[in-house]
Amino acid sequence: MEQSLFQMLKEYNKTMLPMHMPGHKRNLALSGTDGYLAALRADCDITEIAGFDNLAEPEEILLSLKERAARLWKSEEAYPLVNGSTGGILAAIYATVSMGNTVIMSRNCHKSVYNGIRIVNAKAVYLQPEQDAKTGACGAVTPEAVEAALQKYREAKLVVVTSPTYEGVVSDVEGICRVAHTYGVPVLVDSAHGAHFGFDEFPKGAVECGADLVVHSLHKTLPCLTQTAMLHRTGGIVSREAVQTAVNMFQTSSPSYLLLASIEGCIGLMEERGDKLCAEWKEALSEFYKGARLLQRIRVVAGEITDENGDTLRRMEPAVYERDPGKIVIVTEGTDLTGPMLTEKLRSEYRIELEMAAEQYGLAMTGPGDTKGSLARLLQALLEIDAQCEKSETPEFCYPGLPPVRMSAAEAERGFTKEYSWKEAIGRVAGEYVWAYPPGIPLLVPGEEITEEQVGFLLQKERNGVRIHRTGGGSGEAIRCL
Amino acid sequence: MEQSLFQMLKEYNKTMLPMHMPGHKRNLALSGTDGYLAALRADCDITEIAGFDNLAEPEEILLSLKERAARLWKSEEAYPLVNGSTGGILAAIYATVSMGNTVIMSRNCHKSVYNGIRIVNAKAVYLQPEQDAKTGACGAVTPEAVEAALQKYREAKLVVVTSPTYEGVVSDVEGICRVAHTYGVPVLVDSAHGAHFGFDEFPKGAVECGADLVVHSLHKTLPCLTQTAMLHRTGGIVSREAVQTAVNMFQTSSPSYLLLASIEGCIGLMEERGDKLCAEWKEALSEFYKGARLLQRIRVVAGEITDENGDTLRRMEPAVYERDPGKIVIVTEGTDLTGPMLTEKLRSEYRIELEMAAEQYGLAMTGPGDTKGSLARLLQALLEIDAQCEKSETPEFCYPGLPPVRMSAAEAERGFTKEYSWKEAIGRVAGEYVWAYPPGIPLLVPGEEITEEQVGFLLQKERNGVRIHRTGGGSGEAIRCL
Repeated sequence: MEQSLFQMLKEYNKTMLPMHMPGHKRNLALSGTDGYLAALRADCDITEIAGFDNLAEPEEILLSLKERAARLWKSEEAYPLVNGSTGGILAAIYATVSMGNTVIMSRNCHKSVYNGIRIVNAKAVYLQPEQDAKTGACGAVTPEAVEAALQKYREAKLVVVTSPTYEGVVSDVEGICRVAHTYGVPVLVDSAHGAHFGFDEFPKGAVECGADLVVHSLHKTLPCLTQTAMLHRTGGIVSREAVQTAVNMFQTSSPSYLLLASIEGCIGLMEERGDKLCAEWKEALSEFYKGARLLQRIRVVAGEITDENGDTLRRMEPAVYERDPGKIVIVTEGTDLTGPMLTEKLRSEYRIELEMAAEQYGLAMTGPGDTKGSLARLLQALLEIDAQCEKSETPEFCYPGLPPVRMSAAEAERGFTKEYSWKEAIGRVAGEYVWAYPPGIPLLVPGEEITEEQVGFLLQKERNGVRIHRTGGGSGEAIRCL
Repeated sequence: MEQSLFQMLKEYNKTMLPMHMPGHKRNLALSGTDGYLAALRADCDITEIAGFDNLAEPEEILLSLKERAARLWKSEEAYPLVNGSTGGILAAIYATVSMGNTVIMSRNCHKSVYNGIRIVNAKAVYLQPEQDAKTGACGAVTPEAVEAALQKYREAKLVVVTSPTYEGVVSDVEGICRVAHTYGVPVLVDSAHGAHFGFDEFPKGAVECGADLVVHSLHKTLPCLTQTAMLHRTGGIVSREAVQTAVNMFQTSSPSYLLLASIEGCIGLMEERGDKLCAEWKEALSEFYKGARLLQRIRVVAGEITDENGDTLRRMEPAVYERDPGKIVIVTEGTDLTGPMLTEKLRSEYRIELEMAAEQYGLAMTGPGDTKGSLARLLQALLEIDAQCEKSETPEFCYPGLPPVRMSAAEAERGFTKEYSWKEAIGRVAGEYVWAYPPGIPLLVPGEEITEEQVGFLLQKERNGVRIHRTGGGSGEAIRCL
């Protein structure tokens, strides 16, 4: 008989070193005085009964939870979320944008941003961050690019950027907010990967940088159960009522108290010793990065180049404003390995599971649940793999530009006729989203024209083992078109 | 220092008998061979990594989970949900209804149905189920009422009914589907409280009755963690692709594997011994109902009146098609107690927590986690309270009709100007929803005219201790109007 999911989870637990979400890394010791991570089980599983408040209209214990979260992250209000960052993104967009409005967004936003815009029938204008020709990863969004878009699209109602990205790229959120606010436009920062920002020496958090709306995933980089998140609202542009209403619309009316209690436990832990935990985590990372200088062929992306004494010499990547050291990007470019090969080697030979594999890099996601020991185990494995691999020329990425927009996404989705093979589809209008994971940037959005350049790029990705996904499901060899 | 949520949960656990959700009743013994309820902890908390499939595009273990669920409930596809029934309702409406479309829905639908219709900017036409003058509870929706609405609104794209309701009222879903399908219109049944239907002798499930889309909450009446649910699709009217796309839009892209593994555990348990568990549960209920015949003043609503030998004599309530015996409705009408008084007595004197209190009844929610012992404890408490209370005349409920619609909900919400006291608001157009919980039927929907009759009814409810809620939050003494 097939193994059950439950058995698989128990099994996985015994052997693998998780270099992926969630940030607690199943390190149950990591949960403060209460020991909440170890103790939360089905016997704490209730929903909103008398005495336990109401998440949609909190007045007691959950109101105090909201207030503690707002204090901790320095926002005006915080909304605990149990449908992940997705729920916060949908609510934030619903609260600020109506049918026909224009939204300026970075093209490398998570699909929930695309979905939110589609739900409200708004129009998206894209900012394409610079893409690294060696690794294929996206850089930062600049205040200049935001300003140019705001000048061109005066009617814009919202700016959306992702910072930090999956790969740890931080944008100049402070600069972006300054620009947007001179136009009276609010900024939503998808900071799903940045809940730990602002603690110890990690980069400054998006709330403190002036963002009107910020979404934090709690499980990604803090010790909290998967699917928990927080939406923050600050400043005078977006109303508290609009946000509360929208959050209540997209989130279950029977929230899990296991999830809510883990949020409370996480907040308590970060209040008590968030800076200390983050300092320890950062120290373990520093030791890792120091050791990683010994790598000869594969390399690890770091935010800065430092000299012997650890002093900063210069930033490595011009397209990056700042970097979250918590995301370890292991680059295979220039070697005979690819990202998927590296990931598979780590999995099968070293029992280390990475968060994701792109064509030319693997991503190790660290969290406060990591220790010097877990990072040393990763480093040791990388050093061994490095010694076995060879230098090799890797062709640079050559990105097709953004395709021409022929109609709105909503229009295109309602109007699609049938599926075409990629070759037949050239010149037609896409009727669905096409994604290549990783890195999750949509190659095509409904309503965009399918160009020869795009199709060539896409087929090349597929040949390199990257999986092509379509909104409506189905094989990656065809696309729904008009 | 204030008690933490976590401490409160642990404390609650030790003392209270839960006559409320979730259906597992924290009875950890109730989890099959795996013991999943007892064993699921943060050390099983991962998200979608290699080998653990992808909920948005399942191909391995989660596909097999979907297929097992579809077989168990006899649908064509089943979609596991981790954002509760809310996520399923929003997705089902998004998949079937577009901007400007008409939806025929029963007025006693859960607020997520209203939210779904609002999100897609559709127009709602309401079916008002008969309301019991003694208890204030809603009866069933009839096929005749659905047919009349379909004849009048030929453009309707969807029919939505709730069956069973919170109070266990079952509608003739088979008849409703037969009628709707002759008009080519799909039926969405919010069967959040009916996941146990079809097992043993509980009423027939909505999927088997022919509904195109059915939402089941798994935690409400089966042994599963809170916030888990299932959406079922069957038949040729609604497309599989539209449903999968919509589910993926409203649900987090980092689903909790604690929740998913509990869904798997629950399905395994129901496959193995669902009928047996439900038979035991029903037997415990029969014993309870038999004992409840001794009540002299307060009374328990049962679906049927039976004679000495247990043979059915007649149905009690003409407005009810069938009744789920799992919901114990304890009526205080005709006594000197009210629903809230009964609930408070049970809580403080007997350590029994009910699911909810309406003006003239309390609702005890049972589940397969209940035992003869837990129901005997409830019965004993009720008999003691019954012996202490007095007969008394309770005025009958007198419902205002549905208020006149002056504009669409979306229009009204975007256009509200300011708050008015209830008296000042008469004659104006509501700019937000107004709910009285319980029973959760909106008294006013945005766009409806506020009548004197409505305001009188509402203020009377408030005097009786029922809390008035508004979408945008804030005190129950005013309303946002145009």
